[in-house]
Amino acid sequence: MKRMEEKILRDGKVLPGGILKVGNFLNQQIDTRFLAQMGQEIARLFGGDGVSKVLTIEASGIAIAAAAGMALDVPMVFAKKHKTSNVDGAVYSATVHSFTHNTDYQIVVSRDYLCPGDRVLLVDDFLANGHALRGLMELLRQAGAELVGVTAAIEKGFQGGGDSLRAQGIRVESLAIIDRMDENGIVFRH
Amino acid sequence: MKRMEEKILRDGKVLPGGILKVGNFLNQQIDTRFLAQMGQEIARLFGGDGVSKVLTIEASGIAIAAAAGMALDVPMVFAKKHKTSNVDGAVYSATVHSFTHNTDYQIVVSRDYLCPGDRVLLVDDFLANGHALRGLMELLRQAGAELVGVTAAIEKGFQGGGDSLRAQGIRVESLAIIDRMDENGIVFRH
Repeated sequence: MKRMEEKILRDGKVLPGGILKVGNFLNQQIDTRFLAQMGQEIARLFGGDGVSKVLTIEASGIAIAAAAGMALDVPMVFAKKHKTSNVDGAVYSATVHSFTHNTDYQIVVSRDYLCPGDRVLLVDDFLANGHALRGLMELLRQAGAELVGVTAAIEKGFQGGGDSLRAQGIRVESLAIIDRMDENGIVFRH
Repeated sequence: MKRMEEKILRDGKVLPGGILKVGNFLNQQIDTRFLAQMGQEIARLFGGDGVSKVLTIEASGIAIAAAAGMALDVPMVFAKKHKTSNVDGAVYSATVHSFTHNTDYQIVVSRDYLCPGDRVLLVDDFLANGHALRGLMELLRQAGAELVGVTAAIEKGFQGGGDSLRAQGIRVESLAIIDRMDENGIVFRH
């Protein structure tokens, strides 16, 4: 998505440690006109695939997943993050390791909101090592729901999570893929 | 908003302790077609008031605030919740007491995203005692931004937070106001 690359180049900030700050249009502050365009782009990519539900993780995935759900005209569900593994039988749950905070957390979704037969598109703001998305895939497995594909606003291609999913035959469509970034600039994959 | 009352009556569940479960259309699972209608209703209510920014708190306020921002065609900002008061000078912050979890937490917004001169509409999914919204108002005060009004998808009128804000002269427009709810049913304010 050309416009995503332009936004990243104009408004993003590369920080040491492979961190890309996009807080002024993608998380914390959200450019809502651009958000609607992201939703439409996701609907263009997956509109013909019979998606019945969009799934993301709180908090920063919610806005883009809501926009995708609106554009696809399907419900959006978000998994909640819990610090503890103290979750009851009314939910599907999976453990995700956060490299940012060097800790494990649980993601949970009520069994009411993921069903066998659901065709689910996973949406997130970032795709880096892919651990959060693999946690969501585990929830789908528990629910007997089907994975249609994965979409992220920004994929950090150099961290390999997206390519690892693609190698498994999963359709991954990121709105922009960064193959390299440092103080000299940002290189996108085309 | 008539449609909100219908959704609450059809899909909401009243639990003991004044809890209303609306997880199947408003939080956790979100009816995105209805979400867009909520955004349009908020734009109808506040579209003539020069709103420059919509502000909410993660996580459950994000979807409705994004829809409101899209309908009003203004940016949306969400405050982050921190467990600790260990926040630096690059943010505005306030302390909020959670009655649900009987604990205090910090809400923070980067100084980059709230400015003097901003005319801000506060949006949240629930308005109960109003403590979270008062925390957001404190962030506006620190930033020198102006409060245009407050809107919530569902106001628990019986908890008094909305009326307390109205008594201060603040414009509060909730999409549905519940004045009473128990095992016998739900009574809306009209």
